[in-house]
Amino acid sequence: MTIVHRVFNFAAGPAVMPVSVLEQMQRDLLALPGVGMSIFEISHRSKPFESILEQAEADIRTLAAVPSTYRVLFLQGGASLQFSMAPMNLLGAGEVADYIDTGSWAVKAIKEAQKVGRVHIAASTKADNYSRIPLPSEIALTKGAAYVHMTSNNTIEGTEWKTLPETGAAPLVSDTSSDMFSRPIDVAKHALIYAGAQKNLGPAGLTIVIIREDLLERSRARTATLPTMLNYAVHAENKSLYNTPPAVAVYATGLVMKWLIAQGGLAAMAAVNERKAATLYAEIDRSGFYRGTASKDSRSLMNLTFRLPSEELEELFVKESAAAGLDGLKGHRAVGGMRASIYNAFPEAGVDALVAFMREFERAHG
Amino acid sequence: MTIVHRVFNFAAGPAVMPVSVLEQMQRDLLALPGVGMSIFEISHRSKPFESILEQAEADIRTLAAVPSTYRVLFLQGGASLQFSMAPMNLLGAGEVADYIDTGSWAVKAIKEAQKVGRVHIAASTKADNYSRIPLPSEIALTKGAAYVHMTSNNTIEGTEWKTLPETGAAPLVSDTSSDMFSRPIDVAKHALIYAGAQKNLGPAGLTIVIIREDLLERSRARTATLPTMLNYAVHAENKSLYNTPPAVAVYATGLVMKWLIAQGGLAAMAAVNERKAATLYAEIDRSGFYRGTASKDSRSLMNLTFRLPSEELEELFVKESAAAGLDGLKGHRAVGGMRASIYNAFPEAGVDALVAFMREFERAHG
Repeated sequence: MTIVHRVFNFAAGPAVMPVSVLEQMQRDLLALPGVGMSIFEISHRSKPFESILEQAEADIRTLAAVPSTYRVLFLQGGASLQFSMAPMNLLGAGEVADYIDTGSWAVKAIKEAQKVGRVHIAASTKADNYSRIPLPSEIALTKGAAYVHMTSNNTIEGTEWKTLPETGAAPLVSDTSSDMFSRPIDVAKHALIYAGAQKNLGPAGLTIVIIREDLLERSRARTATLPTMLNYAVHAENKSLYNTPPAVAVYATGLVMKWLIAQGGLAAMAAVNERKAATLYAEIDRSGFYRGTASKDSRSLMNLTFRLPSEELEELFVKESAAAGLDGLKGHRAVGGMRASIYNAFPEAGVDALVAFMREFERAHG
Repeated sequence: MTIVHRVFNFAAGPAVMPVSVLEQMQRDLLALPGVGMSIFEISHRSKPFESILEQAEADIRTLAAVPSTYRVLFLQGGASLQFSMAPMNLLGAGEVADYIDTGSWAVKAIKEAQKVGRVHIAASTKADNYSRIPLPSEIALTKGAAYVHMTSNNTIEGTEWKTLPETGAAPLVSDTSSDMFSRPIDVAKHALIYAGAQKNLGPAGLTIVIIREDLLERSRARTATLPTMLNYAVHAENKSLYNTPPAVAVYATGLVMKWLIAQGGLAAMAAVNERKAATLYAEIDRSGFYRGTASKDSRSLMNLTFRLPSEELEELFVKESAAAGLDGLKGHRAVGGMRASIYNAFPEAGVDALVAFMREFERAHG
């Protein structure tokens, strides 16, 4: 047997996958059991693939307790395409959409919505360098807004919502790309939830959308003008098989959903994620050598951002940690510093290895 | 070693991949050599992934002799999203786009273009059930058209263009989803070429776009209104890394490009494809029991469509061929009958097996 060398992958996404999932994919790569062809080759109209798709949806429904009045869609284009699809489907002429600006990805969502219709910035923490989530009292919603858009976890700035904003009758739309299924989610408090799969859910190339059925009426009303591929109702009516779906990514994500269920589901996963993050934040806070950039009450459990005393030390930290098999710790160029992304599949051993490295690095350079 | 049972996969797409490519992916699935992480996990901003993307582009340029004035893009959403992107980027207010209607996929492209602007049907073979490609004399182009759109191979109807239409100064846009790189292509005669990867090129979830640089000016002029993810210029300027690309599909397609080069390139591949198709068409034409549905001068080398004397026999043929390990021969529901899709990676042994089965079936039921 060949020994496979694997590093600890702290990248912000695409990100680490469960090893057991990779092993199953490897075993079955030439031919799915009983099917005689690879998942890379299988027709999306075949019974075996339909089963894979249906099982992935069923497991998502189980994991997140998705109410029957919501549809689960498997799409392409990532959150970046959702930034356009959400307003193109949901924002009518003369209506206003509320956006809560909590960082770089929220800004991108806002820019795309502004191409479609009227946008109101209901809150922004830009003045604080997006180091925190706004307080409920800071959020000024528009009466009768078409929807309210939020970003549940801010990958670049390392912040995460702890409780959902109260939006009253306005549908809540959430970009959960970097924390979907890392903790329990109250689907019923949302109208539309979307996420690129490549952080907690699976490989790049798949977008998961959970949408409340009544919103599909807005899509149907726009059928004559909306590009068919951008119409939520079309995908819902065709059970995500209007066109050829990204079959390999659907399959891999389905295996991750099975893995999540085997871990005990979202509450169990959240406990692990809280433990991993607590260990790392404790080290960040321990001596003052490292400095967390996000406000403590807004700290992300997924992306932990921190600085060192100087940019020179930060550069050295990136270099030496990579050499030590701790990959992808360099922070996003927009904020600098370090970022440790520790999604669902990131092993606790990797957090321990980073903590050990941080102590050693501080001893050498502190 | 486990014996892997593989069937002959005649599906119209996703479709059969080269076994050597599947084997390489299997070997390296847990960790790419020297990288320490799986292609399912790798950051799209990492050097190893950038190399994979650049190599795939370089190999495409080599294979198709892509002129330096063309950009190669790796996108998502398949041809179905291109049906909208092409007119949204290229068709201005007051302009007309010419579309040549050769079948079901052309009709879909036309419907999406009509949502964007004025469309002129320059030719249609609908009256002949799309059993042929129009003659040059039947194509009535608009003077000053924004572009002319064609479908190089009609997957459902089993027809394929043998020579490109002369479009003069009008840019030629071609949906080559089902025959890209199955034969040499004169890129310079096109302005925009697109294809979903899942037939001749790789797995589902990746769209390859080859676009002449001057067309990007039209995209740039629409930056303020066009959704960013649908803007060709944005993807060109960001070297297909504006957002997270479908990394696994890019990698797999890159391996198929290497395989195509190892086969001797597109001319060598065309010779194999011609031989495979000739063998099968000879059997279709041999006795009169089988009946090809496409006009002989328009016959596709990729999707070979034929009927049997009765629908009952067709049903039996589908059932018995599947039991014999010949999978996916049922024709599209829109036309009925049989369809054998024999893309690049479909083995000659599979064609021989089908011919043997057809003779046996005729003996039993003829």
